[in-house]
Amino acid sequence: MVSTGTLHGVGVGPGDPELITLKAMRLISGAPVIAYLAANGRDSTARDIARPYIAATTAHLVIDMPMRVERQPGEAAYDAGASAIAAHLDHGRDVVMLCEGDPFFYGSFMYIFARLAKRYPCRVVPGVTSMTASAAALRRPLSARNEVVKVLPATLPADRLREELQTTESAVIIKVGRHLGKIRNILGLLDLSSRAQVIIKATHEDEVVTPLLDITEDHLPYFATILVYSGTEAW
Amino acid sequence: MVSTGTLHGVGVGPGDPELITLKAMRLISGAPVIAYLAANGRDSTARDIARPYIAATTAHLVIDMPMRVERQPGEAAYDAGASAIAAHLDHGRDVVMLCEGDPFFYGSFMYIFARLAKRYPCRVVPGVTSMTASAAALRRPLSARNEVVKVLPATLPADRLREELQTTESAVIIKVGRHLGKIRNILGLLDLSSRAQVIIKATHEDEVVTPLLDITEDHLPYFATILVYSGTEAW
Repeated sequence: MVSTGTLHGVGVGPGDPELITLKAMRLISGAPVIAYLAANGRDSTARDIARPYIAATTAHLVIDMPMRVERQPGEAAYDAGASAIAAHLDHGRDVVMLCEGDPFFYGSFMYIFARLAKRYPCRVVPGVTSMTASAAALRRPLSARNEVVKVLPATLPADRLREELQTTESAVIIKVGRHLGKIRNILGLLDLSSRAQVIIKATHEDEVVTPLLDITEDHLPYFATILVYSGTEAW
Repeated sequence: MVSTGTLHGVGVGPGDPELITLKAMRLISGAPVIAYLAANGRDSTARDIARPYIAATTAHLVIDMPMRVERQPGEAAYDAGASAIAAHLDHGRDVVMLCEGDPFFYGSFMYIFARLAKRYPCRVVPGVTSMTASAAALRRPLSARNEVVKVLPATLPADRLREELQTTESAVIIKVGRHLGKIRNILGLLDLSSRAQVIIKATHEDEVVTPLLDITEDHLPYFATILVYSGTEAW
């Protein structure tokens, strides 16, 4: 009888492969099996980030996620992924699941974790988030002293977004995508447009930073982030 | 004539030396000069975290911070630190400033950055924050889908804290220290006490996780964090 393997949810950071932690690198390079979500069975940013550290002998468990724009993939895909991981764990093989950014900060790992954490040993390795990577890209501190930071998914209703943006010193608006028009309206109403910066692919080779007022498009990529600084620049 | 050196603000992560990034390790181990704040000239958590990666030949620039509990050190200390760093940069020596967590997320680096970024090349390397490290320690996702996360310094007035806590799915309350009584009252009023967990020194060897309701003390360490989950556990 073999003892069961351990599932590791490992943050690989925001994009630059050098922004992976030593712990993540050690676990990835020694993993008998790595798992990751792949949109439509193909694309995986997490795998691309981790690529330099994946051994040639490591087995890849690709969790096929039939993605539609801004829709959560179906429960069935997570069920299938969790079962495939469990089969390895049952045979005593550790599985390292690669997660963009941090596994527990708006990550898909939690859906696998929810299915397996009660039955198998699970460990979570935090990673650098795109939130602070975006602040570094902007060369502007996110928060100081007793300032509030809010992380606001652009998918929220306009009323809620307006209320939250009205009462914060800094905001990180994530998942902007096709909600750009809504966000632009709200920031305009609050007179914050000139204080908003758009960051696309922070720390990737093709990182782009643009003031919101210079954006002419109606849409942004799903993973675009807008940082809004409404505080008094106390620093 | 020598060209000036570069100032690197480098996040060393939340505590576990293995949660430092490869980029931070490379910069630290190759640095001619490392700089860090030291409370009363002595204690530096950032240096302790980075210790395995500091070469024996590296010069240490200790920025003496006369700390009183929960008070920002004086401007004079930052002025002196920035001048000492500038002297190295003027001689063409790069300086790596070590920062707990992430340099731009409630870090002291921003006060040095504000003094030097216009005169010298400066780069910022993001790090793993205690925020996501705390979620990993709790084994509970911080946020999913369209949930809001708020980072709330416990130093804020009670009214503001109550309002913000009332209207969020997750909250990360930082700098708890002697404000524990205030936080406890507010969470009690909002019926959130049972949803609050205290994390001290996430990912350090002496990490402690305790439900708020099990805490009997009137104070917590300054760097204690409270995570509050008021959402509906959508994940």
